Amino acid sequence: MDFTEVPTPDADVEHAARARQDILTKPQGALGRLEDLSVWVAACQGVCPPRQFTRARVVVFAGDHGVAQTGVSAYPPEVTAQMVANIDSGGAAINVLAGSAGATVRVVDVSVDCDEPLSEQIGKHKVRRSSGNIAVEDAMSEEETVAAVTAGRTIADEEIDSGADLLIAGDMGIGNTTPTAALISALTGLEPVALVGRGTGVDDAGWSRKTAAVRDAVFRARNDTADPLALLRICGGADLAAMAGFLAQAAVRRVPVLLDGVVVTAAALAAERLAPGASRWWQAGHRSTEPAHALALAHLGLEPIVDLRMRLGEGSGAAVALPVLRAAVATLASMATFGEAEVSDRADAEDRSAAPS
Amino acid sequence: MDFTEVPTPDADVEHAARARQDILTKPQGALGRLEDLSVWVAACQGVCPPRQFTRARVVVFAGDHGVAQTGVSAYPPEVTAQMVANIDSGGAAINVLAGSAGATVRVVDVSVDCDEPLSEQIGKHKVRRSSGNIAVEDAMSEEETVAAVTAGRTIADEEIDSGADLLIAGDMGIGNTTPTAALISALTGLEPVALVGRGTGVDDAGWSRKTAAVRDAVFRARNDTADPLALLRICGGADLAAMAGFLAQAAVRRVPVLLDGVVVTAAALAAERLAPGASRWWQAGHRSTEPAHALALAHLGLEPIVDLRMRLGEGSGAAVALPVLRAAVATLASMATFGEAEVSDRADAEDRSAAPS
Repeated sequence: MDFTEVPTPDADVEHAARARQDILTKPQGALGRLEDLSVWVAACQGVCPPRQFTRARVVVFAGDHGVAQTGVSAYPPEVTAQMVANIDSGGAAINVLAGSAGATVRVVDVSVDCDEPLSEQIGKHKVRRSSGNIAVEDAMSEEETVAAVTAGRTIADEEIDSGADLLIAGDMGIGNTTPTAALISALTGLEPVALVGRGTGVDDAGWSRKTAAVRDAVFRARNDTADPLALLRICGGADLAAMAGFLAQAAVRRVPVLLDGVVVTAAALAAERLAPGASRWWQAGHRSTEPAHALALAHLGLEPIVDLRMRLGEGSGAAVALPVLRAAVATLASMATFGEAEVSDRADAEDRSAAPS
Repeated sequence: MDFTEVPTPDADVEHAARARQDILTKPQGALGRLEDLSVWVAACQGVCPPRQFTRARVVVFAGDHGVAQTGVSAYPPEVTAQMVANIDSGGAAINVLAGSAGATVRVVDVSVDCDEPLSEQIGKHKVRRSSGNIAVEDAMSEEETVAAVTAGRTIADEEIDSGADLLIAGDMGIGNTTPTAALISALTGLEPVALVGRGTGVDDAGWSRKTAAVRDAVFRARNDTADPLALLRICGGADLAAMAGFLAQAAVRRVPVLLDGVVVTAAALAAERLAPGASRWWQAGHRSTEPAHALALAHLGLEPIVDLRMRLGEGSGAAVALPVLRAAVATLASMATFGEAEVSDRADAEDRSAAPS
């Protein structure tokens, strides 16, 4: 697993983009976060003004989790496979939200608990069926961990080679916020009780089972907190490992990413540990209501673009944020400058305010 | 000025829309604010599922303000007319952001400080040149106030009769955050010092002049705080009065509105006073960095959709929020139900969690 060659977004283009924002027909800084986002996209693309995204792509990583058999979720495990089919046929939230944002969706069966993937294409990168119950055993073997990270890298390469110019990772898997909380705890040192949320809406008894499972998993990982691959193996899952490989490889390939919710952000924490500097190629699409999400984003130094009390996963929060990123690109690409529009800049007013009024 | 016939969004459709959100293939409530917004659009349209917006329209109300001659802005007053031309030729932020969100833009010269409006169409509803310096005199006469509110109502009617199914009001006018702060203070009783911000970026001396002007204007209005028309006349402006008429008339005509920044929200406070209940037809597009904005939105009971540190006006913040509203509509209009997708709902899991685990 060698990600040492993570490049840096282009600093010269970043400066040029910031300078261009300052001569567009609006007060300097008046577009707020849009200005920062536009400058980031330009630096990632290495060109100013930046190009509007023409192939924004959501990849949903589906996997089951052995721990779901212990009642940590409000939904039964068979929903994972059912939702893979729903995404494949276009009826899930991510299909609708991606469509609304001008993005397309691919769903990948990394570790769904079924022998027969829904289709050859969906199962092409399958690593295993489900994962071990992380409360009592590792999620998977060392070989499977490497295979899962490699699958994620390969999927990123496939998408980028097909022309993807913006990537979003999404998650689908009943019980996946349990390994997510365990991974975030192991990677950041934060207490499980501060990180465990309601996921899809588990009740109090389920929340207690979930917190206990997270504690047990984190305890089993106590001697491996410096090794992201070991953590993915001990208290993560094949889907999380594949997402980590995908996010790291996007950075290696210089393609910007919008992160989604808490599950993807847990994978992002692992990816940043595997490939330091990769996070410069990511923005946080949204903040979910899962308590671990804001903490994990803060750990990565990322600020969410929208905060709409969403808690669905699938890439849905990132898809809702995508039009904001498109709007940011559009300002730098299409607004007139003061000179072009023959609008007086504030220098004229500074003369004025020096005069008696 | 009779707006007594403000209707209410359809309560039966609201209930039907909420019930439909609960059977779509995602945990109940997992789409957060998107669910609330989708239900609101359905209730406004009186149909579930709601229709996607086909003619979202931004109307930018341009006007100058006599108080700008006293150095309350970082920009010279001639920028208002220059920016009207920039918007008309498509180079301003609002053109680019509206285009990115699938909306079109109209700019109206309500009270720009020029004799010759840029075009007949732009000047069709012109009320007067600029407005009085509200620190020492009324912004306009009673007749002009009625003419300005009527102009706004007429513009709303024109747009709705042309098929607009979502309206956004925007502002353009050097110095307009000064009457804005005065209006908000007079309408809410909040202290000027808590409301006055930097506008386009005025320096400390300018901020002091601005705060003094607001205090003087609010003092002149002290006996008229129960009369929104009087307040628009004494410490507002023709552009603000036109926006108030526009926002109230959109509600009368049952057309949903996304509010923009602090200037539009000041007009909205006056419109809600003129036409009680109108605010049920509005959502707050964004929260700007102007301190008065969050306070005015709270007074209206509205929660911003995005918070991106924008402070431009023109309708720009609402335009950036529009894709979120579109995404919300899309969920209710296009997602599969549990039944349609043959996905197990949580009832199955509730059986499970009752079982020993």
